[in-house]
Amino acid sequence: MRIDILTLFPDMFSSMEHSIIGKAKRQGLIDLYLHNFRDFAKNKQKHADDYPYGGETAGMLLLAQPIFDAVDAIEKETLDLKKRIVLLDPAGKVFDQKMAKKLAAEKQLIFICGHYEGVDERVRSLVTDEISLGDYVLTGGELGAMVITDSVLRLLPGVLGNDQSVKTDSHSSGLLEEPQYTRPRKFCGLEVPDILLSGNHEKIRQWRLKESLRRTHQRRPEMLENFDFTDEMKKMFSEVLAEELLKSIHYPLK
Amino acid sequence: MRIDILTLFPDMFSSMEHSIIGKAKRQGLIDLYLHNFRDFAKNKQKHADDYPYGGETAGMLLLAQPIFDAVDAIEKETLDLKKRIVLLDPAGKVFDQKMAKKLAAEKQLIFICGHYEGVDERVRSLVTDEISLGDYVLTGGELGAMVITDSVLRLLPGVLGNDQSVKTDSHSSGLLEEPQYTRPRKFCGLEVPDILLSGNHEKIRQWRLKESLRRTHQRRPEMLENFDFTDEMKKMFSEVLAEELLKSIHYPLK
Repeated sequence: MRIDILTLFPDMFSSMEHSIIGKAKRQGLIDLYLHNFRDFAKNKQKHADDYPYGGETAGMLLLAQPIFDAVDAIEKETLDLKKRIVLLDPAGKVFDQKMAKKLAAEKQLIFICGHYEGVDERVRSLVTDEISLGDYVLTGGELGAMVITDSVLRLLPGVLGNDQSVKTDSHSSGLLEEPQYTRPRKFCGLEVPDILLSGNHEKIRQWRLKESLRRTHQRRPEMLENFDFTDEMKKMFSEVLAEELLKSIHYPLK
Repeated sequence: MRIDILTLFPDMFSSMEHSIIGKAKRQGLIDLYLHNFRDFAKNKQKHADDYPYGGETAGMLLLAQPIFDAVDAIEKETLDLKKRIVLLDPAGKVFDQKMAKKLAAEKQLIFICGHYEGVDERVRSLVTDEISLGDYVLTGGELGAMVITDSVLRLLPGVLGNDQSVKTDSHSSGLLEEPQYTRPRKFCGLEVPDILLSGNHEKIRQWRLKESLRRTHQRRPEMLENFDFTDEMKKMFSEVLAEELLKSIHYPLK
């Protein structure tokens, strides 16, 4: 996969060498190119931003011209690659695991990192996707490009040490992960559930699935609204509901 | 504000010097401390992770002991500071602008960056908040800590050049931002709306508010469900609905 990042702050990406992005580069699984908008600015001062029309608002907007020219230059070099051009923007579609899977199927991703107050509206006509990390505001699109790149790269075969990990993750299965424990068996008075020490793999599998359903129900019930329950899950889930209901009753049952 | 980040990969944070985090540090508005879990590991090899109980799952879990000891050491140093201890975890509460505002009111934030398959369940008993960036999976909590820190710092007085910016941002007002334009007036056949060039500040204010409502309605209608409309907004919004309805009619009106 080829990844091109258009930004005012290419230095922000240097430490990504220590992350999965660096690992994927060293494995030859991705080519990462950083481009500075300023290098494409046509004005004498190499400014990539200007004041918004209409006045009375704070901040500067990224100019359309350097962004159009940068994307154009990249596209000319990579005509043969199936690509998406992603604008990181708080008004974009909220990123989720489904989008990560879609992006992971592409040959090239071009990220346009907004900064300052935003970008000239006409840049939207150039992009295939407008994506927001979530309902919060960041100083720029750089962290968004890193987050999306991280979530996409870990789905590529060979990037994570163990392909199994991807399948059992929270959100990948449509459920949150069950509680997990490592050594020691007892820590600060808190013990590992006996079942996990039993060596009975089928019982452990069932416990994990049920606790995964319980955690999702407790913390993110809306994730279950369109969830595809198997018969086994349905039975477990009705047990979870009964158990949780019982816990919520504060008078003695006779 | 004091920010402590507990991680296996402190080097990942080095390039944050080029971002708002570095700026806030140089201005003396924050103190940032990075801590490596390994420095608190009590085993000979300084391992901060181990295999999960129950077998048959991929990946390693972060041990509880180094995390408990690291948080303990930090807390002993900062007893007087009102703080939150945040675990970055896909099963956490989904981060939003309201949470950013709450965190911005604290004197200290301690971030625990999960990695590998996750953390020992008992770590959850130690934290005040479990936060997820969104419904997607990342290789670790490091990018999450950066994103939350970025969103929080920009709310602190003096960090952004212009305090106005914070108020008019998407999500801060509860609406998405209206389309914005900068020079030139005409670019690739796309023109700046005349109103923005009119110099009539009141008309421009009205146009911006109405287009902000339109964009939110088109892209994120659920954001309007609990939105507090003023009378002016109600009138504008009914105009937006009528205009959008009219656009959707494909037979000639007589």
